[in-house]
This record gives sequence, structure tokens and C-alpha cells, in this order.
Amino acid sequence: MNTTLTSPSPTRGPLDHDVRTQIVDAATDYFTRYGYEKTTVSDLAKAIGFSKAYIYKFFDSKQAIGEVICANRLAEVMQAVDAAVAGGASASDRFRRMFRAFIDAGTALFFEDRKLYDIAATASRDAWPSVQAYERYVEELIARIVREGREAGEFERKTPLDETANAICLVMKPYINPLLLQYNLEGAQDATLHLSNLVLRSLAP
Amino acid sequence: MNTTLTSPSPTRGPLDHDVRTQIVDAATDYFTRYGYEKTTVSDLAKAIGFSKAYIYKFFDSKQAIGEVICANRLAEVMQAVDAAVAGGASASDRFRRMFRAFIDAGTALFFEDRKLYDIAATASRDAWPSVQAYERYVEELIARIVREGREAGEFERKTPLDETANAICLVMKPYINPLLLQYNLEGAQDATLHLSNLVLRSLAP
Repeated sequence: MNTTLTSPSPTRGPLDHDVRTQIVDAATDYFTRYGYEKTTVSDLAKAIGFSKAYIYKFFDSKQAIGEVICANRLAEVMQAVDAAVAGGASASDRFRRMFRAFIDAGTALFFEDRKLYDIAATASRDAWPSVQAYERYVEELIARIVREGREAGEFERKTPLDETANAICLVMKPYINPLLLQYNLEGAQDATLHLSNLVLRSLAP
Repeated sequence: MNTTLTSPSPTRGPLDHDVRTQIVDAATDYFTRYGYEKTTVSDLAKAIGFSKAYIYKFFDSKQAIGEVICANRLAEVMQAVDAAVAGGASASDRFRRMFRAFIDAGTALFFEDRKLYDIAATASRDAWPSVQAYERYVEELIARIVREGREAGEFERKTPLDETANAICLVMKPYINPLLLQYNLEGAQDATLHLSNLVLRSLAP
């Protein structure tokens, strides 16, 4: 999966592509173990057994490697959420499944090994492209579920759709944004349940 | 006001009390200008013109001074919120006023001068007693407003009161906890409006 998210230069062939993947995989392992912020490209080069100059042939900076790792993890979160939502019997059920899946997948992919947290934190703080794309995905998914619920007569239609979707995004944000999730891991399961109930009461026709 | 929140030792008289206030006031100025984390008691002593040993006669540590400052600021937030809520014509109105006042007062007291933010962040992260008391205040105020709204027939009564109050706390937390508010300052006004609307829709009978 890494390969689809790296951005290969058009002048490079399949071998370069493999090297990029190899660097990303090794960097994922390394950052997971030692953290992102404190690691330098030199540390990474030494660990992989490449020269620093060779790594710079493929990535402009440590951040360029970090972005690929972050994008890969976020892609996994989105896949898990899509799969959870697809099984929902109603818009309400899809909403509950979505919220739970965001927390479960986000926790598993960024926090179970605490060391990857600092990539997530840096990515959120500096609004990396992968995080911006993830936020658009969240917004669109919420708007879609609300729209479907309105069309099915499950949800009220008086409030402007934009306002409803935006407010729900705000409610979910502390559990979806990787920078904020770190402060909300404790009790996140109960929180999801209570907040899902509150949101669904607010959506009642 | 500082005087009520310091904890004077019973063996000390009014003069000591004044000195404590003087240290707290000077430290507030100093931390506002140079930040809390990076300042040492030596820096502070030099700035006030006291010896370090003299400051230690009144406070066990830098944190002990920080706690008084934090408690004072949080007391001001609570006063502002109480005043705002007192003017509310209905439970819904009181809820809206409360939410707005938390953000306005929290922003003004901790963030308008960004340098005091790090006291707030440290206090939240390490769950200082002043922050714990503040959190209890928030929980109790929310529960009171919900209860009053239920009694007046403004709010639904089917959901257990504890669950409703807890969920509303969770919705408001990113704007009330000083550690989290820093990430949510941008757009906080709009967020309060949309979230208040959502919460009030969820409370409709």
C-alpha cells in the first residue's frame, strides 16, 4: 500500500519505486521505535544501511518520509471506517459505526505504539497535506450520512445541512484529530457512546 | 482576590500575607511576559528584588506560586460565567450564555497574552488541584442547567441526567479545558454557536 501513496518522480523506474518503499518501511519501524521528532535522516540512514545522500535522492527531507507514513496510516483509518460504515443498517447505525471506527482505528494505528504519536502530532500541528485530505474525508462522510438520514426520514431537516454537519464534526474532532486524540484516549469508548447518543438525539425529526 | 486563594500558614501574620500576595502579583507579571515553564525561582527572585531563600519562605516551589496564579485566573473565569448565567431568561438561554462566557473569559484570561498559556497547559496536564476544582464546577453547572430545564419542561427527561450532563461536558471540553482551548481558539465563536444549537436540539423534549 505504501507504493500508492509515495509520489514517484516520472523519471524514475520500478527499482527506484522499490527503494522508496523500502525506505518508508524501514523509517516506519524506526520511528515507531525511537520517535519521529528526535530522529534525524542520518540516524535513519545508519539504521537502514544506506548513505544519507542516497536517501536524499528519494526524499527531500525527513518530513517527506513522515508524510508518506502518516498518509499510509490515515489511509488505513479511512479504510477501516469505510468498512464499518458499509455494514450499517440505517443512517443512525452508520453514524454510530463511523464514530466507533474512527476511535478504534486511530487508537490502534497511532497510539498502541505510543512512539508513532509524534508523527501524528507534527502532521496535525503543521497541517500536512495528508491530514488536510483526512479532514475533508471526515467532513464529507459526516455530511453524506446526515443527508442519507434526512432523505430516509430518520433525521430532522429544519437545520441547514452545513450547520448540522459542521457541528457534528466539531463534536467528533477531539477523537478524530490525531493531535487531540492523545488527550482523550482515556474513556474514549464511553465518550463515543454518550456523544453518539447526544448527536442522534439532536438529529431526531 | 489573590489573598483568598493563597493558603497562609497559621503561624504567619498579616505582613506575611501581604508578601505572599506581592510575590504572586510579581510572578503573574513575570510569567505573563516570559512564560512559566522556562522561568526559575531565581529569575523570579531577581526580578522582584527578593532573595531566592526569602521566596522559599513563602512558597515551597515554583509550582506552588503557579497554582495560586492559575487558581486566581480560573476563579475569574468562574465569576464571569456565573455572572453571564445569572442573567439568563430560560435554561436554554443560560446554557448559551454559559458556553459563550467560558470561551470569552478563558480566551481573555489565558490566551490574549499567549505567555500565560503554559501555566494553563502545565496545570491541565498535571491535573493541579485548581484545575480539578474547575472541572467539578463545570460539571455541576451543566448538570444544574439541565436539571432546571427539565423541571421547567424545556428539556427532555428520558435520557438519564448523568448521561446527558456528561455528554454535554464532553462537547464543551475542548473549549473549557485550558490545555485543549489552545487548539480550538480559531473559529471558537462560530463553534460555540453551532455546538450550542446542536446541544439544545438534543435537549428538546
